[in-house]
Amino acid sequence: MQHVDVLIIGGGPAGISAAVWCKRLGVDCLLLEEQAQLGGQLFTIYNEIIDYPGIQAENGIEMQRKMVQHFIDMGCLYEVNTKVISIDERSKTVKVKQQETEKEISYTYLILATGSSQRKLGVPGEQQMIDRGEVYSASADGERLKGKRVALIGGGDRAFEGAHLLASQAKQVYLIHRSTHFKAREQYVEKVLSDPGVKVMTDTEVTAIHGKHHVTSIDLKSKNSECKNLSVDAVLIRLGIAPNVELIKEKVTTTQSGLIVINEVHQSSDPAIYAIGDACTTPLFSSISSSAGQGAIVAKYVSSLLKKS
Amino acid sequence: MQHVDVLIIGGGPAGISAAVWCKRLGVDCLLLEEQAQLGGQLFTIYNEIIDYPGIQAENGIEMQRKMVQHFIDMGCLYEVNTKVISIDERSKTVKVKQQETEKEISYTYLILATGSSQRKLGVPGEQQMIDRGEVYSASADGERLKGKRVALIGGGDRAFEGAHLLASQAKQVYLIHRSTHFKAREQYVEKVLSDPGVKVMTDTEVTAIHGKHHVTSIDLKSKNSECKNLSVDAVLIRLGIAPNVELIKEKVTTTQSGLIVINEVHQSSDPAIYAIGDACTTPLFSSISSSAGQGAIVAKYVSSLLKKS
Repeated sequence: MQHVDVLIIGGGPAGISAAVWCKRLGVDCLLLEEQAQLGGQLFTIYNEIIDYPGIQAENGIEMQRKMVQHFIDMGCLYEVNTKVISIDERSKTVKVKQQETEKEISYTYLILATGSSQRKLGVPGEQQMIDRGEVYSASADGERLKGKRVALIGGGDRAFEGAHLLASQAKQVYLIHRSTHFKAREQYVEKVLSDPGVKVMTDTEVTAIHGKHHVTSIDLKSKNSECKNLSVDAVLIRLGIAPNVELIKEKVTTTQSGLIVINEVHQSSDPAIYAIGDACTTPLFSSISSSAGQGAIVAKYVSSLLKKS
Repeated sequence: MQHVDVLIIGGGPAGISAAVWCKRLGVDCLLLEEQAQLGGQLFTIYNEIIDYPGIQAENGIEMQRKMVQHFIDMGCLYEVNTKVISIDERSKTVKVKQQETEKEISYTYLILATGSSQRKLGVPGEQQMIDRGEVYSASADGERLKGKRVALIGGGDRAFEGAHLLASQAKQVYLIHRSTHFKAREQYVEKVLSDPGVKVMTDTEVTAIHGKHHVTSIDLKSKNSECKNLSVDAVLIRLGIAPNVELIKEKVTTTQSGLIVINEVHQSSDPAIYAIGDACTTPLFSSISSSAGQGAIVAKYVSSLLKKS
C-alpha cells in the first residue's frame, strides 16, 4: 500500500499552502483533489480579490493560476479526480476512487482541507437540478431569469438580498423559509416584505423539486396547511454555508454547525488528524489569507513531529 | 487630538495585512511605522521566499515591494518615521514622535504588529557596534571574516551553525555561552566540539564590547575564574529572537519569553488591544503567511465590533 507521511485532502488555498509548506520543510506529502483541477472555492469567486496581501487578482481564476503555478513550480505531489470515499482512523488509511479504480493510501498525519459548500435541502430532484447546471447567481443571472417564476429558499441575508435583486426582473419571486424567524438583516427583510414582486412564504418547507430537463415545480409542506405543488422555473437554494466534513464527522469532535474542533496547531480530537481552512473556520473568519496562514502552521507543526520521531 | 477607530503599530507583513483588510472592510484605520519604509523584517530576508502561496519572491525586498504596492493601491493610511514612545491604555491614546515633534493619537482598538528582533546582550559597546554596521551573517560574510578572530555568543542552533561555518575561514572562532547546557541540536554541538578551529567557552558571560572604529576586544566573566579581556575582531550575537513588546509588556499579559498572550481572535488581556505577527507568535510558527492570515482575522473581528457599536 502507498504510504505518505502527510496526506492532504482538498486542493483549495488551505491545502495548497499546506503542501507548499510541507515541500519547503522537506516533508513527504501528497495532496488529493476530488475535482479535475486544484483551486477549490477560488473557482466560485467572480469578483476582484483585494485582500490577499501582495496579490491583487481580477477574480478567483487568476488567484487559482498563481497559487497552482507556485504549487507546481515547487514540485508538490498531487492527484486530481480523486475522491476520498472513506477514512479509517484506526489503521490510518484512506480509501480513494479514481474513475473506476479504488486504492488505499496510508498516512502518518492527515490534513483535512475539504473546505465548505452551500448547504443543501436534501430533497428529491435537488442534486439532478444541480447536475443539470441549473445554478444561478441572483446578482449575475438577472437577465437569464427575466420573466421567470423563481423560488428562493432560505431566511438569511443572501436569500433576502437575492429576492430583492430579482424582484424587478423575474415574473414572480417566492421567498420560502421553514420558520417565521429570519436571520437576515432587518433592512433586507423590510425591503422584501414591502416589495409587491416578492411573495414571502413562512413556516414552509420544500419537499421535492420536479422537472426532467429543467425545473417545472416544487412541492411545499406548510405547518398549517396541506401539501401543495407550486409551478416555478428556477430554484435558488440560499441556506448558507456548511463545512465539508461528511467523511470525518463521526470520527473527530465537531461544533454544532459542523466545524471540526481544533487546537492552536490545528490538531483535531484525533491526534493524527488536522484541519485547516473552511472545514474548521467559521464563515466570519474565512479568507484566503487565513487559509494560507493555517496551512503554514499545520505544516510546520507536523514537520516538527516527524523530525522528532 | 487625532482619533482613529483602529491604530496599527508596525508595518511588517502582519500590520500591512491588517491595514489592507481594514480598508477592505471600510474600517477607519491608521498604521504607524518607526522606520522610513514599510516592510519590517522583510528587509532581513536575503534568500528566496518560496512559502507565501501565490508569490515566489527573489528575496524580502521583492516581497516588500509587492505588499507595499498593494497597501498603497488600496489607499491605506500610514505614517513612517513615527516612533510610538508610550501607550496609555486607560485613556486609549498613544504618544508618538516624528523627528522633533510629538503628538497624541487616540484609538478605539489598538493592533500591535511590532514584530520581533534579535535578542541583545545589553552590555556597554553593543549598540555602538550595531550602529557602526558591524553586523555579520555567518553564511554570507565568510569572506569578510577571513583571517579574523571571531566571537559567537549563544548556545542555540544559530550560534553553533555559525561557529561551524566560520571555523574554516576565520583565524580563530570563540563560541561563548553563559551556561554549560546547549539548546542547539546535538549534531551541531558535536561537530563544533570536535572542530579544532573553534574554542568553546562555557559558563562565560560577555560584559562589554570594546573598540572605537571597529571591535577590538570583549570583556568576559566566568563562573570559576576572574574577569578577562579577549582580543577579537568581530562579535556575532546569536541569542535568538525576542518579540518587540517593550511598549506594552507591563500592560498586557505576556508569556515567559515575552510573547503577548492572545485568544483566538488575537485579543490580548486588554479588550481594546490586539496583537498579530511575531509579537504574539512563537518563532517556530512565525511566517509571512501566518502573519498575513492573522491580520485578516483581527481586522474582521474589530470590524464586526465597530459595526455593532
